[in-house]
Amino acid sequence: MLSSEENGILTQVGPGTPVGQVMRRYWLPALLSTDVPAPDCPPVRVKLLGEELVAFRDTQGAVGLLEEHCPHRLASLFLGRNEENGLRCVYHGWKFDVLGNCVDMPNEPEESRFKEKIRTKSYPTMEQGGVIWAYMGPPEKRPAEPGMEWSRAPERQRYVSKTIEYCNFAQAAEGGIDTVHSSFLHNNDLSNTRHFKRIDTAPILEVERTSYGFRYAGIRNLGEIGNYVRIYQFVLPFHQFRSHQVDFEGSGERQAIPLIQGHMWVPIDDEKTMVFNWMLVADEDKAMTPDFILKRETGAGRGPNGEGVVRHQTRANDWLIDRQRQRTKTFTGIPGLNTQDLAVQESMGPIIDRSREHLGSTDKAVIQFRKCLLDAARDLQNGIDPPGSDSKTYRGIRPADLTIPKNVRWQEAAKDKLLARW
Amino acid sequence: MLSSEENGILTQVGPGTPVGQVMRRYWLPALLSTDVPAPDCPPVRVKLLGEELVAFRDTQGAVGLLEEHCPHRLASLFLGRNEENGLRCVYHGWKFDVLGNCVDMPNEPEESRFKEKIRTKSYPTMEQGGVIWAYMGPPEKRPAEPGMEWSRAPERQRYVSKTIEYCNFAQAAEGGIDTVHSSFLHNNDLSNTRHFKRIDTAPILEVERTSYGFRYAGIRNLGEIGNYVRIYQFVLPFHQFRSHQVDFEGSGERQAIPLIQGHMWVPIDDEKTMVFNWMLVADEDKAMTPDFILKRETGAGRGPNGEGVVRHQTRANDWLIDRQRQRTKTFTGIPGLNTQDLAVQESMGPIIDRSREHLGSTDKAVIQFRKCLLDAARDLQNGIDPPGSDSKTYRGIRPADLTIPKNVRWQEAAKDKLLARW
Amino acid sequence: MLSSEENGILTQVGPGTPVGQVMRRYWLPALLSTDVPAPDCPPVRVKLLGEELVAFRDTQGAVGLLEEHCPHRLASLFLGRNEENGLRCVYHGWKFDVLGNCVDMPNEPEESRFKEKIRTKSYPTMEQGGVIWAYMGPPEKRPAEPGMEWSRAPERQRYVSKTIEYCNFAQAAEGGIDTVHSSFLHNNDLSNTRHFKRIDTAPILEVERTSYGFRYAGIRNLGEIGNYVRIYQFVLPFHQFRSHQVDFEGSGERQAIPLIQGHMWVPIDDEKTMVFNWMLVADEDKAMTPDFILKRETGAGRGPNGEGVVRHQTRANDWLIDRQRQRTKTFTGIPGLNTQDLAVQESMGPIIDRSREHLGSTDKAVIQFRKCLLDAARDLQNGIDPPGSDSKTYRGIRPADLTIPKNVRWQEAAKDKLLARW
Repeated sequence: MLSSEENGILTQVGPGTPVGQVMRRYWLPALLSTDVPAPDCPPVRVKLLGEELVAFRDTQGAVGLLEEHCPHRLASLFLGRNEENGLRCVYHGWKFDVLGNCVDMPNEPEESRFKEKIRTKSYPTMEQGGVIWAYMGPPEKRPAEPGMEWSRAPERQRYVSKTIEYCNFAQAAEGGIDTVHSSFLHNNDLSNTRHFKRIDTAPILEVERTSYGFRYAGIRNLGEIGNYVRIYQFVLPFHQFRSHQVDFEGSGERQAIPLIQGHMWVPIDDEKTMVFNWMLVADEDKAMTPDFILKRETGAGRGPNGEGVVRHQTRANDWLIDRQRQRTKTFTGIPGLNTQDLAVQESMGPIIDRSREHLGSTDKAVIQFRKCLLDAARDLQNGIDPPGSDSKTYRGIRPADLTIPKNVRWQEAAKDKLLARW
Repeated sequence: MLSSEENGILTQVGPGTPVGQVMRRYWLPALLSTDVPAPDCPPVRVKLLGEELVAFRDTQGAVGLLEEHCPHRLASLFLGRNEENGLRCVYHGWKFDVLGNCVDMPNEPEESRFKEKIRTKSYPTMEQGGVIWAYMGPPEKRPAEPGMEWSRAPERQRYVSKTIEYCNFAQAAEGGIDTVHSSFLHNNDLSNTRHFKRIDTAPILEVERTSYGFRYAGIRNLGEIGNYVRIYQFVLPFHQFRSHQVDFEGSGERQAIPLIQGHMWVPIDDEKTMVFNWMLVADEDKAMTPDFILKRETGAGRGPNGEGVVRHQTRANDWLIDRQRQRTKTFTGIPGLNTQDLAVQESMGPIIDRSREHLGSTDKAVIQFRKCLLDAARDLQNGIDPPGSDSKTYRGIRPADLTIPKNVRWQEAAKDKLLARW
Repeated sequence: MLSSEENGILTQVGPGTPVGQVMRRYWLPALLSTDVPAPDCPPVRVKLLGEELVAFRDTQGAVGLLEEHCPHRLASLFLGRNEENGLRCVYHGWKFDVLGNCVDMPNEPEESRFKEKIRTKSYPTMEQGGVIWAYMGPPEKRPAEPGMEWSRAPERQRYVSKTIEYCNFAQAAEGGIDTVHSSFLHNNDLSNTRHFKRIDTAPILEVERTSYGFRYAGIRNLGEIGNYVRIYQFVLPFHQFRSHQVDFEGSGERQAIPLIQGHMWVPIDDEKTMVFNWMLVADEDKAMTPDFILKRETGAGRGPNGEGVVRHQTRANDWLIDRQRQRTKTFTGIPGLNTQDLAVQESMGPIIDRSREHLGSTDKAVIQFRKCLLDAARDLQNGIDPPGSDSKTYRGIRPADLTIPKNVRWQEAAKDKLLARW
């Protein structure tokens, strides 16, 4: 539970807001590489941290991310022509390169030097892992290039998609950080669980602050076998890493795929979030096959005819909840694992009032998430750079899940498993 | 005409508002019994006086009315599972009974006593007359159970439906209290009335304050025959009773049905109203037959393919006004008696500015309605309970219509007719 | 570029605003004559300068323009019955004539004189050029009847249509006043213009203030041939006149039509504009044929299946921009000359922040437009009547386009051409 003031700080991301300033000190996922698939392809609108932008890929393949409105008379550059190394406004022909320089101004006399005085706001971008990342902070504070393990891994090992979510990023992130809800919300086979087993539903949570955010373990008591431990990573400002083994039978034989997955909850504005969903096959001998992608994305609710950036299960249609199915088959009656997350988070309203909550012992990680962001916001006001904003400390990490004897600490037992391979 | 300040007081119903507090001292219609038709059926959303709630019928048949959002992390209980005597949140499995007690908390360790500290807001409910009534006020002021004549009458004598209206409750109620407009707005046969007859269109209104609200008579001069008098009842905070004889020819012979009808204009919030429409066949020898219901509801505009809770004639399509029909057949060109009411009331905008009105002699009842509510609001601030909030004084009453000699007072002549039989 | 304060003054038009008061000193186009085509036809809603009105044509053919809501209980007179010389409210039958007098009040006793005290707000109207004009200012300041050349010309010479635009009137007007953008935005044949020619794209602008607003010339250097000069007229508060020769081959032989055209950008409210589009064949020997109208309106984007008052190319569908077409055929990929204007102006958002602009040498006319309105607003506060509000000075004018020798001033060369013939 937060005070109303803290709640406001946690959830506001526009220019000049405390958490908005923290976010502007990291490389942020802005769009998928495939959103601007080829040189000189049509520009697309991007809204990031409440700022209206337009992205385009120039003739050399570089991606520009400019303020949406032309500095001349404020026409939208989304309507613009992506021409030879620049985006040209259709109103009077002003043309801008990826750096925001005005490189042509055909409505002024040839001798005019007006164009040299004109720049438009432009944010640096880079591409990694199928994602175009942007840096929106002070130039002198620009970090080294981002490098999550999954985004540096070979292309054949990974997959990324994105989904819009109609609520604040923190609400979405808190859903992802919460390891406990999966026994309830994502229980898609009621026949197995007529009675809840505390072993699954009330794990012990252990949370540890790190140089990049925090990590936490959900510990489930397996009796004589020992403890089953799932270790999540949270990297500021909005990255979650988790792992588990997946049984998969594609065209070939049945096999166990060691999967690392996560989300990035990127604020569009205070009331909308672009969720990037990534996954990584953590074994070099196994690739991310189209079959596997299709099965996983479908299970998440993003398969063919499923929920993508444009969604068809929303608050307006009660997320197509099927009450009969809810009664007899699945806990929610809502198809799609991630769609279940979207539904429950959006059902709270666009921005929840955290002063009305009642948090229990299994909400420790959620509490830590809030503390991380609020601490970073306060520290930044005092001139202290946000944790991990050097793009270094999170490079070596991984999530893990494993079964260990009762008398062993997970920090020790999982040491090697928690190291990135790429 | 009211001052802007009075207009604000009259129309605002949220928690803490003066008229909102008055309303919270009565049993309020919250939903139809058929909205939660069976034990353990799916929960439904209810918005009442600006408060977001969820209703469910438990295994014993009792109806719970809880705050919509789970007190844990504020997920909507509308998505919840209606299980063995409780509504369970799909996020982490917290379960609440109809009294708002947390009866299960499976995500906490077995030994935890956290659940005992958790209650969610719950309002008492009761069922009568096919309606689920809720009490949202201070527990120590909770009145005896409601008991309008129509709601206590045998089921075979009565019928209730509901309709959403897109304006403030007072605007809707003022339409229902106004006896005069029926000669105009509801004139569905222009051929009879090329020229208005003052006898119909300008009745004398006599209004009398009562212990439950007020009653008023619309007196129409029939010359030598005497006076035709229609006596309406208004019961605080938003009930209207009226009566008239209806000619009906169903499958059997033509007969005269003595009908008592009314509306309850229940505020959803300041700009939306749930209108409950009830009718009562006032003669025990005659029942409310399906034929009769169909004919009346269709005439009102709520028949098959007509306007129910979901409406298809709205401001967005100009209530499907048919200008040719308006010119030649009916006064409005809008089909459905009650849809005509909705159209004219919604055409004013969601909340009218009563300081701009010009009221005449036939607006006396409307003026009394406002006075009743404003007086009750002021009195309540001074510790005086609202009129009729003991659920007693309105039990014995009925509306009436009758023709009387000129030298007789309607109060005397209608004495017996104004008494409830059930 | 304007300060935020000036920007607010320029764009706000409601009652009591400085520019709103300026506008209320002119006859304003309210609707097309064809919107109320016959005596006693259905009334229509009109919103003008933020005021909600209803228009009707009475039995004599006179057009009334009344406040939308009946002064009795504020029902909308849009639902009203247009009867024998008056508009009757369907709620209680109050009836108003075109002057706003209450001429019948059937719900009051016959002897009542209440009706004599009731008037509703009514604005004087007149018809000219297929347009119904309204005067919304102080009665004692009412100007002589309007009389643009095009609206006084014989009916066979002219045509008027209207289109809704979803942005502030000033934004729309600035697009129309800007002569330069046509080489870019309206370039519908890329094959001719792989390389911009400064001769077309960067004309010299000369602007002159006049007694009715201003006129300005766009001068394009044709080398030895001389200069090609297009002279536009701007008449306060929102009229633009322009001219050019049009090649047309209808059913008969190919001919050159001397065309005068313009727009009136009439504020619906601060964020919506009703654009009236007129054209005039300036040669009495040639009429405005249906063929010609169809071709021009289609080219503008308003032809059969094109954009009229109800539009189907809007921000919600990115104005149906065709990126392939934009790459290969036309500068914008958006069909319809005027739809291109609407798209670029709406892409800026409903009201642009002019403090963020960067204006160049070709924006002189736009700057003059703002100055004209802001000066008029300031002067009016000091008791000085707005330029041209006597409806006289603009009667004699015309726009023109012509080619002149280099050593000749356009003001001299075009003197005769700039005179109205009707």
